[in-house]
Amino acid sequence: MRAFRKRYHPPGTAPGTLAVVASEVPPQIRLIDYTPTHYEEKVLGAPAECAPFLGAESTTWIDVQGNAPPDVLRELGRLLNLHSLALEDILNKGQQAKLEEYDEHVFVVMHLPTLDESDALRVEQVSFFLARGLLVSFYGQAQEPFEPIRQRLRKRIGRLRKHGSDYLLYALLDVVVDHAFPLLESYGERIEALEDEVLEQPRQDILTKVYQLRRELLLLRRMCWPQRDVLNDLFRGDCDCIEPETTLFLRDCYDHTVQILDLVEAYREMVAGLLEVYLSSLSNRLNESMRLLTIIATLFIPLTFIAGVYGMNFGNNTESWWAMPELRWAYGYPAIWALMIGIAAVMLYLFKRNKWL
Amino acid sequence: MRAFRKRYHPPGTAPGTLAVVASEVPPQIRLIDYTPTHYEEKVLGAPAECAPFLGAESTTWIDVQGNAPPDVLRELGRLLNLHSLALEDILNKGQQAKLEEYDEHVFVVMHLPTLDESDALRVEQVSFFLARGLLVSFYGQAQEPFEPIRQRLRKRIGRLRKHGSDYLLYALLDVVVDHAFPLLESYGERIEALEDEVLEQPRQDILTKVYQLRRELLLLRRMCWPQRDVLNDLFRGDCDCIEPETTLFLRDCYDHTVQILDLVEAYREMVAGLLEVYLSSLSNRLNESMRLLTIIATLFIPLTFIAGVYGMNFGNNTESWWAMPELRWAYGYPAIWALMIGIAAVMLYLFKRNKWL
Amino acid sequence: MRAFRKRYHPPGTAPGTLAVVASEVPPQIRLIDYTPTHYEEKVLGAPAECAPFLGAESTTWIDVQGNAPPDVLRELGRLLNLHSLALEDILNKGQQAKLEEYDEHVFVVMHLPTLDESDALRVEQVSFFLARGLLVSFYGQAQEPFEPIRQRLRKRIGRLRKHGSDYLLYALLDVVVDHAFPLLESYGERIEALEDEVLEQPRQDILTKVYQLRRELLLLRRMCWPQRDVLNDLFRGDCDCIEPETTLFLRDCYDHTVQILDLVEAYREMVAGLLEVYLSSLSNRLNESMRLLTIIATLFIPLTFIAGVYGMNFGNNTESWWAMPELRWAYGYPAIWALMIGIAAVMLYLFKRNKWL
Amino acid sequence: MRAFRKRYHPPGTAPGTLAVVASEVPPQIRLIDYTPTHYEEKVLGAPAECAPFLGAESTTWIDVQGNAPPDVLRELGRLLNLHSLALEDILNKGQQAKLEEYDEHVFVVMHLPTLDESDALRVEQVSFFLARGLLVSFYGQAQEPFEPIRQRLRKRIGRLRKHGSDYLLYALLDVVVDHAFPLLESYGERIEALEDEVLEQPRQDILTKVYQLRRELLLLRRMCWPQRDVLNDLFRGDCDCIEPETTLFLRDCYDHTVQILDLVEAYREMVAGLLEVYLSSLSNRLNESMRLLTIIATLFIPLTFIAGVYGMNFGNNTESWWAMPELRWAYGYPAIWALMIGIAAVMLYLFKRNKWL
Amino acid sequence: MRAFRKRYHPPGTAPGTLAVVASEVPPQIRLIDYTPTHYEEKVLGAPAECAPFLGAESTTWIDVQGNAPPDVLRELGRLLNLHSLALEDILNKGQQAKLEEYDEHVFVVMHLPTLDESDALRVEQVSFFLARGLLVSFYGQAQEPFEPIRQRLRKRIGRLRKHGSDYLLYALLDVVVDHAFPLLESYGERIEALEDEVLEQPRQDILTKVYQLRRELLLLRRMCWPQRDVLNDLFRGDCDCIEPETTLFLRDCYDHTVQILDLVEAYREMVAGLLEVYLSSLSNRLNESMRLLTIIATLFIPLTFIAGVYGMNFGNNTESWWAMPELRWAYGYPAIWALMIGIAAVMLYLFKRNKWL
Repeated sequence: MRAFRKRYHPPGTAPGTLAVVASEVPPQIRLIDYTPTHYEEKVLGAPAECAPFLGAESTTWIDVQGNAPPDVLRELGRLLNLHSLALEDILNKGQQAKLEEYDEHVFVVMHLPTLDESDALRVEQVSFFLARGLLVSFYGQAQEPFEPIRQRLRKRIGRLRKHGSDYLLYALLDVVVDHAFPLLESYGERIEALEDEVLEQPRQDILTKVYQLRRELLLLRRMCWPQRDVLNDLFRGDCDCIEPETTLFLRDCYDHTVQILDLVEAYREMVAGLLEVYLSSLSNRLNESMRLLTIIATLFIPLTFIAGVYGMNFGNNTESWWAMPELRWAYGYPAIWALMIGIAAVMLYLFKRNKWL
Repeated sequence: MRAFRKRYHPPGTAPGTLAVVASEVPPQIRLIDYTPTHYEEKVLGAPAECAPFLGAESTTWIDVQGNAPPDVLRELGRLLNLHSLALEDILNKGQQAKLEEYDEHVFVVMHLPTLDESDALRVEQVSFFLARGLLVSFYGQAQEPFEPIRQRLRKRIGRLRKHGSDYLLYALLDVVVDHAFPLLESYGERIEALEDEVLEQPRQDILTKVYQLRRELLLLRRMCWPQRDVLNDLFRGDCDCIEPETTLFLRDCYDHTVQILDLVEAYREMVAGLLEVYLSSLSNRLNESMRLLTIIATLFIPLTFIAGVYGMNFGNNTESWWAMPELRWAYGYPAIWALMIGIAAVMLYLFKRNKWL
Repeated sequence: MRAFRKRYHPPGTAPGTLAVVASEVPPQIRLIDYTPTHYEEKVLGAPAECAPFLGAESTTWIDVQGNAPPDVLRELGRLLNLHSLALEDILNKGQQAKLEEYDEHVFVVMHLPTLDESDALRVEQVSFFLARGLLVSFYGQAQEPFEPIRQRLRKRIGRLRKHGSDYLLYALLDVVVDHAFPLLESYGERIEALEDEVLEQPRQDILTKVYQLRRELLLLRRMCWPQRDVLNDLFRGDCDCIEPETTLFLRDCYDHTVQILDLVEAYREMVAGLLEVYLSSLSNRLNESMRLLTIIATLFIPLTFIAGVYGMNFGNNTESWWAMPELRWAYGYPAIWALMIGIAAVMLYLFKRNKWL
Repeated sequence: MRAFRKRYHPPGTAPGTLAVVASEVPPQIRLIDYTPTHYEEKVLGAPAECAPFLGAESTTWIDVQGNAPPDVLRELGRLLNLHSLALEDILNKGQQAKLEEYDEHVFVVMHLPTLDESDALRVEQVSFFLARGLLVSFYGQAQEPFEPIRQRLRKRIGRLRKHGSDYLLYALLDVVVDHAFPLLESYGERIEALEDEVLEQPRQDILTKVYQLRRELLLLRRMCWPQRDVLNDLFRGDCDCIEPETTLFLRDCYDHTVQILDLVEAYREMVAGLLEVYLSSLSNRLNESMRLLTIIATLFIPLTFIAGVYGMNFGNNTESWWAMPELRWAYGYPAIWALMIGIAAVMLYLFKRNKWL
Repeated sequence: MRAFRKRYHPPGTAPGTLAVVASEVPPQIRLIDYTPTHYEEKVLGAPAECAPFLGAESTTWIDVQGNAPPDVLRELGRLLNLHSLALEDILNKGQQAKLEEYDEHVFVVMHLPTLDESDALRVEQVSFFLARGLLVSFYGQAQEPFEPIRQRLRKRIGRLRKHGSDYLLYALLDVVVDHAFPLLESYGERIEALEDEVLEQPRQDILTKVYQLRRELLLLRRMCWPQRDVLNDLFRGDCDCIEPETTLFLRDCYDHTVQILDLVEAYREMVAGLLEVYLSSLSNRLNESMRLLTIIATLFIPLTFIAGVYGMNFGNNTESWWAMPELRWAYGYPAIWALMIGIAAVMLYLFKRNKWL
């Protein structure tokens, strides 16, 4: 449920107010500065330390991990010219993914989906500011999703060092978006397991599992739709700070969001189908119980009645001929058995004819 | 249900007719006039008292609380050049949120959602006229949603005093829109509580709660969709009286409506899912009762029949060999017990094999 | 069901063929001719009598009540230059609302919803031809929906006399559209009553009521969607014969159709919700019956079996020790009672533990 | 099911391949050539016989009935310059309605819905080629839907003879489209009959009827949607061979398709509603049976148990005081009756209080 | 389930990385080079062997079967100037169909649907690069879907040899798209068989079949939607390498995708309808069992109670007049029979009146 919550200020608060948000990990600012030939990486003690790197020809990546305290954010904002509404959004988690263009930079909010230790979906907000030669990224968790990118930068793998901050943004977005694929694979396996269970031996705890799964898929879908729009806007847009060569790569990343959404929708339909099959199999079982009960009851209730009749004590009145003459007839008992067996046979024949057996 | 009603004139009434609407609070007109350096606040006895403030350089905010009587409205309309159709809409509550551009002003209808004392959703219509240097606001209830704004004006907090009537409109719209967040939080908690109840111990009053919740979410959704459109039109529009700097803030406010709608839709899906789980668990319980009944009945009905047979009084006829010879057999009674226990054992084995037990 | 029917000619009939349609009221043509200072009203014996009023500076309103016979229609059409396809549509009821622009006039088909004596929805087609200085209206029923407009014309209330035929069209459309509001109020009340009934004491006739309601709301929705489009086209369109000042009023009327549709959709969702609650409460009741039955049966069937066992007559064989020795034991009877009470107690405890009681 | 099939060539067949399709009626080519003053009608032995009529001032209508053999089609195509892909589509039934513009002609595929002898929906493909002064029509069945048009041409009824091939196309399309109206009327009646049945005395064969109806409405809807688009394109399009005066008539025809679709959708919703009502009434009946069973069982099972207790034979042991002393008590029997009647009364009172009776 | 999976690289992998994918068939590169007069076909040992054919006037078709190893792909890419992101997509199966325009070529991904040996849907990705005079196709499976095209090329059937690589692309796309028709026919037959089964003798394994069918139709729909968009873009687009004459053929192919989708949607609705009918028939059967049980129980339970009463042993107390005087009455036994028959008759009459029988 936590994933469906949004942090908010009380109505009437002035816009751009920065809240103090507890951070799971100690906040840390890491700066990476690179050109095709040069690479420098350091951890900043204070935001002001990044000043010498700004405005240079090199590409600068400022990576803020954990929820930075308001004064640090404010100072970063002042140094890098970030808009106060955007800074507010970095801390107010629970946003939808969005792309906002300001005069000098682009602000992107995305979501990184992961599974936590109890296999529940956890969605982490990741924010980016992109300007010429500068990328600032913010994320709150201890895990380091961007480590492979830093490796590629350090070891000069692929194109990363040769391009500017826009290609770096693409590389980071690609990491964020592609995190959904292993997730979807695990959902696919859970659905497959549920299918086997439903079609073979439906148990009641399926309901809880299905409900859980639907909720996570709903969350994933909510997360992915705006993400798709953000990437569409990025690659089709006429953003100054994005080079034409990069748009081809952004289109590829957009394609991934389309495929993710397509899978999420397919899984949603399959889970809905599963639930229907489960409910139908409940109906089937009810029918089966009912049929068995009806057959047994319909067979034995009339017979029990007959037995009950001849268990009456009218025969004690030995003076009246009317007092249960059947009891006095020598062949009464076998005749009654014959009657009862006859009734049962007729019943069974009728059941057979109506395909109840 | 009241929230789904609309006030209307009988068909055929002339357009612009103003009705007398009972007011929960005594109507009151409050005027605030400010520049960055100057601030004045007074309660007006009659609409005409606002005349000296009009046309000046300062920004004037006329705040009408409670349902003003028709003649007061008409005089205000005449003084400030408001269109008669718009004046009619102020009193005819139950409108959808809308934005109407007239020659000299913009007319905005919004809704302020609150929870009343019995925790039911209450939607209050709030209307605004925006012109250069002038904002007129109307709302009908005793609560003072705009008090924080007045505080910020009085104490010069944030940007409010430095901007014109368009920024004031933004600040008020932001208050109106953000009132949905605490509401959504309370709905989120109610859904969470219902979830626990449904998955652990479903009771019948869940139905009533779910129905209530769905209805409120339906109402909220109906309220929010047009609100989103209004804000979209405001920030994308080319309204004369809105400065370019303000549009960034209106976009932020629009973003909030998008997030609210997104949460409302997610909640609606979750409530629908809850209902399905509840119904499935009813089916499950029915199956369980049925299975127990069937097992008991199928076990004991045949046995009772056998007992009934040997309760028949044919044995009284001591002269006939055919009269229940079993009764006369020395080991008849234990043999019957053996038969009955045998039948029960076979039944239990069959139940076991078919996974009924 | 009648409301879902459309009159049609056999396939292959030439277009513009006018059918003879039985009229509930005797057809009558009424002419009103007015300027701001002048007003004349008369009932025409024959269409030709309207000729002197045509082409003058004044505004002429020809109001045809009842289904006029084909020759009268044809003559009207010839006099006023009306297109034959439009004339055909006046008689072929069951159209959707539509706006058709011809060279010299605009043809509008709308629907007037009313409740008939048995509270069922009745939809009456109303058609208009608008040209400069001329409005022709057609409607088939005895009721006089336009009487308030004639009153306003006669008594010079509001703007009507000061504007031309386009404003008159607006006034009539406003009457037609606003007829839905009292209807919706009555539906709102019916839904409220059904709600109370469903949540408190659901009875079987609710199904019929819900089905009826859904059908009427479906009909209303079918009627209102095209009506909204017609008004949208009218106020956004660039129709020659509509003055700019009138468009503000048409926008207001369009707004009403939007609100009506919004209410209809909300009511439809609420009725659908009601049905679901009703069905769930049926499931609940079934569960309750089932549980009671299962408890009673599970308690007493085993006990009855025990009683049946000791009702067997093996004890009559007094020579065999095996013949029901329990019967001969002095404390057999109280022991059996103890056994039966014990079994019942265990059963009750099990029910309690499984929350069946 | 046949109506949901499409004829197709094996994948990989060259485009424009003409298949031999068995024809229900012997193929026949009929030619009609007319001007306002002249009319000629003949049956062609071979396609080549139409050559003299082509290129003249008159309007020529070539009407091909039955599935023509491939060589006849190919020759027609060569003579009249028809595209091979279009010729292929004439024989590959099961197309969707479509409008295709080629250089010199327009190709239109439509569907004629009829009811066959067993009242099942049958959809017949009708294809048209329209060029200046030329209309070629193809349909496969024995019935002659276009006979009324030939009558109007022969007898000079209406405008037909005065206009060109575009108006003729309109007249034929109008026939095709209007064939849906009598069909819809019959569906309306079937729905009405089903409604009465469902609300009064639901029987099981309703399911089959509803399923049949839904399927036919689905088929009709699938057929009508593209038909609407075709007519929309025709009347809005800028097709060379369609005169401006004809577009007004095509708009009228488009209007009919809109009304047909609207009715189909309304009927579909009503049938869905019917099914829901039927299912609810099944639930109701189940509840009713269940309640009756529960009441009877709950009343009599405890009483039968009591009777069973006093049917036990412990009383035979006349030596023990503990052996059923009740039997020896003089008022035992009436006391037991009193007990049983008391229990029944309490039960009935409880049922009454819980509104089960 | 496999069909709902997508191959992906771990998040953070550099774009354009080519994976080694196991190939079901040994990879093979086949080259066909043709002009209207000349035809050459050879199997290439290495990609470099195609170099002499490039840039010539003739049309070259390079057909890569099986999953080529990364280095072969990379060399092909370098020779033919293919973009690395596109090459990556060839191996990452599970894409959606798409059309991507690069500077010198167009990249198309499509899906070939087939039924595997166990009649389950199998979807094979097919990729194409189209450039002036060059077509490269990739597919992974052993089957040879394009053999008919090669036959038409070799034997000069139809237009193929006279047109360029764009017409060849059309021919291949047509093969890919038309593979859905035999599939749909087989689905149609399965639905028809299920229908008969559901309406006549519903069995439980229908659920599994329906679930299977729905899933395959879901997969087919997911596959066809983007395919339709690709063809739409191709025939409407302004792609340099597609000649105007070819667009008519692409439109025909687009038409086929529209018809396929239309059938898929219709089948999906029919399967959904089937499931509803099946569930309703379960409800019906439950009702039937219940009614039978209720009738039998309601008839015999009271009678069994009466029999039980007169099986009580109070009559043994011969000294008390109150001890079951009925037993001592001469006509007691026939009177009891009369009572029981009377009760049964009344019950049956009541059942009859309430239409239970």
